[in-house]
Amino acid sequence: MRAQRSRQETLALRRQLIGSSCKLFYSNDPVKIVKARGQYMYDENGRQYLDCINNVAHVGHCHPDIVRAAHEQNQLLNTNSRYLHDNLIDYAERLSGKLPEKLCTFYFLNSGSEANDLALRMARHFTKHEDVIVLDHAYHGHLTSLIDISPYKFRNLEGQKEWVHVAPVPDTYRGLYREDHEDPATAYADEVKNIIKQAHKKGRKIAAFFAESLPSVGGQIIPPEGYFQKVAEYVHKAGGVFVADEIQVGFGRVGKHFWAFQLQGEDFIPDIVTMGKPIGNGHPIACVATTKEIAEAFAATGVEYFNTFGGNPVSCAIGLAVLDVIEKEQLQVHATEVGNFLMKLLQEQKLKHPIIGDVRLKEEYILLSTDGPGRNVLKFKPPMCFTVEDAKFVVDTVDKLLTDMEKDHPSQEKTSTGSS
Amino acid sequence: MRAQRSRQETLALRRQLIGSSCKLFYSNDPVKIVKARGQYMYDENGRQYLDCINNVAHVGHCHPDIVRAAHEQNQLLNTNSRYLHDNLIDYAERLSGKLPEKLCTFYFLNSGSEANDLALRMARHFTKHEDVIVLDHAYHGHLTSLIDISPYKFRNLEGQKEWVHVAPVPDTYRGLYREDHEDPATAYADEVKNIIKQAHKKGRKIAAFFAESLPSVGGQIIPPEGYFQKVAEYVHKAGGVFVADEIQVGFGRVGKHFWAFQLQGEDFIPDIVTMGKPIGNGHPIACVATTKEIAEAFAATGVEYFNTFGGNPVSCAIGLAVLDVIEKEQLQVHATEVGNFLMKLLQEQKLKHPIIGDVRLKEEYILLSTDGPGRNVLKFKPPMCFTVEDAKFVVDTVDKLLTDMEKDHPSQEKTSTGSS
Repeated sequence: MRAQRSRQETLALRRQLIGSSCKLFYSNDPVKIVKARGQYMYDENGRQYLDCINNVAHVGHCHPDIVRAAHEQNQLLNTNSRYLHDNLIDYAERLSGKLPEKLCTFYFLNSGSEANDLALRMARHFTKHEDVIVLDHAYHGHLTSLIDISPYKFRNLEGQKEWVHVAPVPDTYRGLYREDHEDPATAYADEVKNIIKQAHKKGRKIAAFFAESLPSVGGQIIPPEGYFQKVAEYVHKAGGVFVADEIQVGFGRVGKHFWAFQLQGEDFIPDIVTMGKPIGNGHPIACVATTKEIAEAFAATGVEYFNTFGGNPVSCAIGLAVLDVIEKEQLQVHATEVGNFLMKLLQEQKLKHPIIGDVRLKEEYILLSTDGPGRNVLKFKPPMCFTVEDAKFVVDTVDKLLTDMEKDHPSQEKTSTGSS
Repeated sequence: MRAQRSRQETLALRRQLIGSSCKLFYSNDPVKIVKARGQYMYDENGRQYLDCINNVAHVGHCHPDIVRAAHEQNQLLNTNSRYLHDNLIDYAERLSGKLPEKLCTFYFLNSGSEANDLALRMARHFTKHEDVIVLDHAYHGHLTSLIDISPYKFRNLEGQKEWVHVAPVPDTYRGLYREDHEDPATAYADEVKNIIKQAHKKGRKIAAFFAESLPSVGGQIIPPEGYFQKVAEYVHKAGGVFVADEIQVGFGRVGKHFWAFQLQGEDFIPDIVTMGKPIGNGHPIACVATTKEIAEAFAATGVEYFNTFGGNPVSCAIGLAVLDVIEKEQLQVHATEVGNFLMKLLQEQKLKHPIIGDVRLKEEYILLSTDGPGRNVLKFKPPMCFTVEDAKFVVDTVDKLLTDMEKDHPSQEKTSTGSS
C-alpha cells in the first residue's frame, strides 16, 4: 500500500500534474473519495456521502458480484479479441436478447466516445453521405469527430462544421413547442424535416440523425412520444440512419424499459444503438449494436476494425455480471418504484417551492449536480440500488435548502427538478 | 461459471454476432484461447502456445501482482476523476519520473486511439494550425480523426485529406535512403522540410508531425539516429509540435531505454508523448504527457476535458503495479539481454537463409505475425518476460520451417526478420 496523502497535498499535486482542462467537482473545495459501496461514497475521514449522480456505478459501487467476476477472469486470461473466446459471444448474445431483433451485430470498445465515433463511421460508410443532424446542446463525446457533432462543445470552440445541422431539443417544458402545443412530436419532427430540406437545397446529404434517447446535457429531456418515429421516417427517406445514443440513459435506468428509446413506443427501432458508461459498472466498456446491413456495408470496405482492449474476456465477464445483477436484483422494477416515489415527492416540492435557484448540496453530504443549457436542472442519476429512504432524504434536504433560500432570495427564475 | 462452448460453436456464434470487420488471427482455423500466464497461452484442450506478439500483456499474461492490484482497488473504489484520489496523482508522478522534465502534464484515457486523438486536438489548439505530417504506412488508431492521419488505413478508404501530408518512412533497409547513404537521417528529415515548404506554398500551416518512435505497421522500422531532432527543428520552425506515439513501442520494450524516442539520443524531446497498449498489461489505460505550455493552451479554450473512465482509481492502481513489476523484475535489463541474444541468433539465420517468404507458425504452437506494407516482416513483440530459451525455441522453429520452405520454393523476395 502507498501512503495516503492529505487532501491538500493531493489537490496541490493534482494541480501540478494533471491538465487543468480536467475539472473537479466542487472545485473550490473538492472532495477526496477513498471508498464507495452501493449508493454511498466515503471521504478520507470516513464521512458518508449519498451519491445521486453516479450513473456509471450502475448496480452500485463495488458490487461484490462485479468485483468477483473481474477477479476470476483477470486470473485466467485478458487478451484481445483476435482469438476466439466465449465471453465475447455470451455477452453479445445476452445484449442481443435485450434489443429488437434487427439490432443483431455487435462491436465492443472501451468508451462511449469510441462507440459514437464508430457509429458515425458506420453511418457514413453505409449511406455514403457525410452530414449529421444533432439536437441542440447535445454532447456525444470528447473525440475530435464527436465535438464536431456536440453543440454543447463546438459552440465554445471552432464553431459549427458545414456538415453538421442542429435541430431544436424536443423539450416540451422550455422548448420551441411546449405542453400546451397540440402535437409537439410532429412539430419538432417537422423541424428536422425542414433541416433536411434546407440541406438538400445546398446539395448536402444526410448520413445520420444522432440523438441521446433522453437528451442529458440538453437538460434531462423526455422527447414527446412518437417524435423519434417521425424523425426516423424523414431521415430514412433522405438516405440516412438513426443513431440512438444510450450511453447515459440505457440499461434499465428508465425503469419500465431496458432502453430509453423504448419510451417512444414499440414501433420505434433505431438503426444503430451506442452503449457505454453503466454497462461495465465503472470498467471501461462500450458497445455498438447495429443491423446486418450496416455491419456488412462497413465490412465491405475491406478495412479491418481492431480495438486493442475492446471485447476482451475481462470486460465481457464484467459486462455479463452487470446484466446478471440487474436481473437477479430486479433493478428495473426497483428503479420504477423508487423513481415513482421520487416523482411524487418532487411534485409536492414543485407546489411548495415555485422559485428555485442554484442549489449546492455537498455540505449536506449529498452528491448532486446540475445540467442543462442554463445549468438550472437538478440531475438525479444515482446507482440503481438507490432506495426510497435515500429519495426521501434527498428531497427533505432539498426542501430544507429551498426553504432557507426562499427567505434570502424572494424572486428567482423558475427551475425544473428533473429525474431520469 | 457459464458452460464452455466448443470451438466450432464459438466460431459460428462469433460469425453471427460480431461485425465481420473484427478479424480473427489465423482466420481459416482460428485459435480459441481460454487461459494465459507469463509468455504462454493455452487453448481449450490445454495446448500451450508461446506468445511472441502480445505487446499488451507487457509484464506477462495474468501477472499476479497486477491481478492483485486490480482486485484490491476494485473492492475499494472505482469512480471518475472528478473526485480527488491519490492513485491518479501517484501514477502521474511516477510517469513523470520516467519522462524528460518538460513533459510534466498528464491526461488519462482508455485507449491509445483516445490518446492520439487528444494529442491531435491539443496540437491544433496550441498551434492554431490544422495540418499534420505523418509517415507513410503509419497507423495511429481506429477513430475517424486517426484514420485521417493513418496512410495504412486511409489509402484503402476515403483517401487523403487536404490537411494531411505523408513523409517517407525513414527505413534504411528498404526505403528511399539506405544503409549505403552517407547521412540518411538528414536525407529523410529534408523530405519533411520539403513537405513543409510545399504545404506553406499552398497556404497551409503545420500543427504537428505525428510518428511512432519506431514505426510498427510501417515495418518495425528503426529510424536513423538524429532524424527526429532534425524533423523537430523544421516542424518547430513551422510553428508545429512533435508528437511521439509510444503506444506500441514504449515502456521499456527497447531495453536500454524506457521510451523508444530515446534511441534518437538524449538531445531529443518530443512535445507530446502518447502511451497505451502495454501500460495497463491488458486493462484499458492510456495516457498523454505534454508540456505546461501545450496543456495551458488547451485549458485556455475554457472547454472541459472529461473522460468517464480515464484515470479512475482501478486503472491507476494497475498502471502503478505495471511500473512496479517492470522495476522489481528488472524487465528492461532482461529485455536487453534476451533481445541481444535473439539478434545474434537471427543474424545467423540471415546468413543461413537468404530467401524468406510467408511464414505461418501456428501449427508449431508459436504465435507470431507479420507486419509492414508488404506483410513480409516477422513481428516479435512478446511479453517482456520472454526468455532466452523461448528465443532459442522460436529461432530453431523458424530455422526448421525455412529449411523446409527453401526446398519447395528455391527463389523468393528477400524478407527482413525484425525484432523490437
